[in-house]
Amino acid sequence: MRLVTFDEGRVGRLEDDTVIELECGSTREYFERDGAVRETGERLALADVRLRAPIVPKKFFHTAGNFAAHHEELQAVNWSHPVHKGIVFFQNVDAIIGPDDDIVYPEGLTNELDYELELGVIIGKPGKWFSPEEAVDHIAGYLVFNDITARDIQRREMQSGVFSFSKGIDTFCPIGPWIVTADEIADPHKLAMELRVNGQVRQTGNTDQLLLPIPHLVAHHSPQGYSAGDIITTGTISGVAAIQPNPFDFYLRPGDVVEAEIEGLGVLRNRVVPWSTAHDTSPYTSSLYTD
Amino acid sequence: MRLVTFDEGRVGRLEDDTVIELECGSTREYFERDGAVRETGERLALADVRLRAPIVPKKFFHTAGNFAAHHEELQAVNWSHPVHKGIVFFQNVDAIIGPDDDIVYPEGLTNELDYELELGVIIGKPGKWFSPEEAVDHIAGYLVFNDITARDIQRREMQSGVFSFSKGIDTFCPIGPWIVTADEIADPHKLAMELRVNGQVRQTGNTDQLLLPIPHLVAHHSPQGYSAGDIITTGTISGVAAIQPNPFDFYLRPGDVVEAEIEGLGVLRNRVVPWSTAHDTSPYTSSLYTD
Repeated sequence: MRLVTFDEGRVGRLEDDTVIELECGSTREYFERDGAVRETGERLALADVRLRAPIVPKKFFHTAGNFAAHHEELQAVNWSHPVHKGIVFFQNVDAIIGPDDDIVYPEGLTNELDYELELGVIIGKPGKWFSPEEAVDHIAGYLVFNDITARDIQRREMQSGVFSFSKGIDTFCPIGPWIVTADEIADPHKLAMELRVNGQVRQTGNTDQLLLPIPHLVAHHSPQGYSAGDIITTGTISGVAAIQPNPFDFYLRPGDVVEAEIEGLGVLRNRVVPWSTAHDTSPYTSSLYTD
Repeated sequence: MRLVTFDEGRVGRLEDDTVIELECGSTREYFERDGAVRETGERLALADVRLRAPIVPKKFFHTAGNFAAHHEELQAVNWSHPVHKGIVFFQNVDAIIGPDDDIVYPEGLTNELDYELELGVIIGKPGKWFSPEEAVDHIAGYLVFNDITARDIQRREMQSGVFSFSKGIDTFCPIGPWIVTADEIADPHKLAMELRVNGQVRQTGNTDQLLLPIPHLVAHHSPQGYSAGDIITTGTISGVAAIQPNPFDFYLRPGDVVEAEIEGLGVLRNRVVPWSTAHDTSPYTSSLYTD
């Protein structure tokens, strides 16, 4: 099933190009009720609705270091830290945007806006302290995540041993276009991944390059506990702008259109817009990051 | 006003030792409604209710590096990173516990369980991209936070430039005993702080040692956006176990009682219990952290 959120937060499932509305307040509630929701009877053409971020989870576990090729390219550019497999931090759930929403370029804060295509895993059944064997029962679906990152801020943050602000700025968390339930994905470890900027391919990979199988990753973080609808991501593949010999030819600029695609999960498309499109003030600056 | 959550999630305000129940579903809803809630008419003796975690926020901004003395003691023990002032990461909101709730010792994961007394700031009015002058309007109250940390896991995490799992394990986030609204705190930058283990003083300090004034800290992180009821913490003071010459004499053990106190905000008391008190399985282990 492809589960969507649309218009003012209505929930539905897609059947071809038809949205069949479901009787629940949010997709998070859908998972809290273990999918036991009825149809409202309303059917709409997909072209007539505005898709929204498919879910706003209670927690968004952001993991890294799981794809060998990206791990290797980071070594090549003298990154300040070895990124161990399966490391985790929490993503800002208020930065989430959906398909066709704009990524607002924060001109006062960064000059190095990068992209990172990631697979997101949706937790259905809540729980904690479980094994990889048990993890399978907790995995309810998948979606595409584009981890927008301000590399200049990230470099300063990592001096202190964190990276959070650089990935948590307003609009930096596009997810979508929908959730595909686990029963529709024959093997989540065999999905082609591709990210394009203005139609040009920037990242290509496949989930068969994952160093940690998804159930192991999900189980490993279970001491922190999962609520229904939580997202856990799997890290990005090779090809980010920061590791190019000429990164400034690759960093995102206002006007760019980013398409993040994973086989069977759809295309998540977002435009980068200048600060002035979204705000009637001068770009925000903060002296802390230049201290 | 002292705002409490009690019994099965009921909300009230304290007047001396009486709980005056308020008509709202949660303290988060109280802030979403800007305090415009009525009394239910019910009054209970404080001794007759069970206080719960005063709030479960949408986001819990965890900042660090704000107290000079703690910053200096970290240098002395050759910490792997300089902790720049005002750095941020997100705390696991599912690890939150309240006053008199137990901290469960995860025997399979850590041997170095530490404490960190912090001041938590409650955001009332939501917003983003604002200045320190504007921040004052967004600050609604304060509470005590004890940042329970597995130092052995933190050391491994910081090799990769994060610290999240080590502070996000189940029950590692005690807050309380209540929220004190901002109008009751004459100067949040002049509050004595003290943490005790089994009655023995371990940490002492004062919020007058903050390197960044609270409104500056709140404004600095505003590009990530605030929802009503969000918590942002201010980092800990000197005296944590990890920086002692003999840290294993100071790390928490099952049976210990930790009291975290901030002037005007009350005492947050939690007992550390062994794994076997809370679980009927063997302690959970994960091979990832020993790879």
